[in-house]
Amino acid sequence: MAEPRGHRTQAQRREQTRTALLDATIDCLVELGYARTSMQEICARAGVSKGAAQHHFADKAELMAAAVEHLTTKRMAALAVSLDELPHGVDAIPAAVDMLWNGYSGTLATASTELWVAARTDPALRAAIRPVDRALGRMALERILGIVSELPPERTETLFWLTVNLMRGLALDAELGGAPARRKQLLEEWKRVAKQQAD
Amino acid sequence: MAEPRGHRTQAQRREQTRTALLDATIDCLVELGYARTSMQEICARAGVSKGAAQHHFADKAELMAAAVEHLTTKRMAALAVSLDELPHGVDAIPAAVDMLWNGYSGTLATASTELWVAARTDPALRAAIRPVDRALGRMALERILGIVSELPPERTETLFWLTVNLMRGLALDAELGGAPARRKQLLEEWKRVAKQQAD
Repeated sequence: MAEPRGHRTQAQRREQTRTALLDATIDCLVELGYARTSMQEICARAGVSKGAAQHHFADKAELMAAAVEHLTTKRMAALAVSLDELPHGVDAIPAAVDMLWNGYSGTLATASTELWVAARTDPALRAAIRPVDRALGRMALERILGIVSELPPERTETLFWLTVNLMRGLALDAELGGAPARRKQLLEEWKRVAKQQAD
Repeated sequence: MAEPRGHRTQAQRREQTRTALLDATIDCLVELGYARTSMQEICARAGVSKGAAQHHFADKAELMAAAVEHLTTKRMAALAVSLDELPHGVDAIPAAVDMLWNGYSGTLATASTELWVAARTDPALRAAIRPVDRALGRMALERILGIVSELPPERTETLFWLTVNLMRGLALDAELGGAPARRKQLLEEWKRVAKQQAD
């Protein structure tokens, strides 16, 4: 039986508050950057009092560690949808490059980069990021290995990691306002080279 | 005539204080990251009082803008030395990839990434970074165009920017503690592909 509207259980309310705080954290990371993101700002955007927020996360560090997972879950879901749409065989390669570019250059990826750079000098945050980031990469790689099955897996894996790292570099270029036309040309060139390497 | 030791002019003392502050800024960016770098910490490391520091830089923003230039001057000098050592012709390509990797992955590059990511949400810092970063890239590209003169310049330019963006991505991977063996393998693979693209 459906619950009457507005009649949420305590567990549902808790979950909703938690999600609101995590979504607000991502918004803050994208708009303000890690350095200027504060518990106060996150609470204001989420419409949650500081006291209520502390029932979920003791401090900024705890909130950030949870945001890493929240963010990666969202990125995985988006990537899984795009992976479903890839053609099969080596024709998938240019499409996979476009897909990885979308995955590594969007708003969620920008929030990840903020956390990632902060994690370099923050061991607790780094410990939270490494396993989930690795799982994201592995998930995408496993799926692509299944799609581009004509190539020796080591070849596909090498092309995959070259692509991911190039996309990360291009995303940084985009963040600082490098010329979009040059990025587009480099993406096209890389699709051509990657396809050629697979032939 | 040589000046007696310890007898510095006021201009020399000013310059020395300024350099000490800028070097301390780079150290802080590398060790603490942008978010935790404060004027107080920089002054303590430089052995300069806050009052004296403010004769040079009114606030963190001014200091950071000057640090960008200081950092880029150092990176340019290091790159210019490595460029002098490159062989000529297409054989320069694998050596140039190694050189760009060193240039984009060292301590100074780490400090640049900190400033760069902070600049995404800080228009004044971005305005300070863009021209000097562009000048660094242009300088390296012009020199490499002179060294790899057999190729059409557009080919060399495309390979150069692909390399730079891949190195930026790999440097981020290194910062978060990605596996060094995989990075090494990807670098070797890229040297092979880049050389092949030039043949």
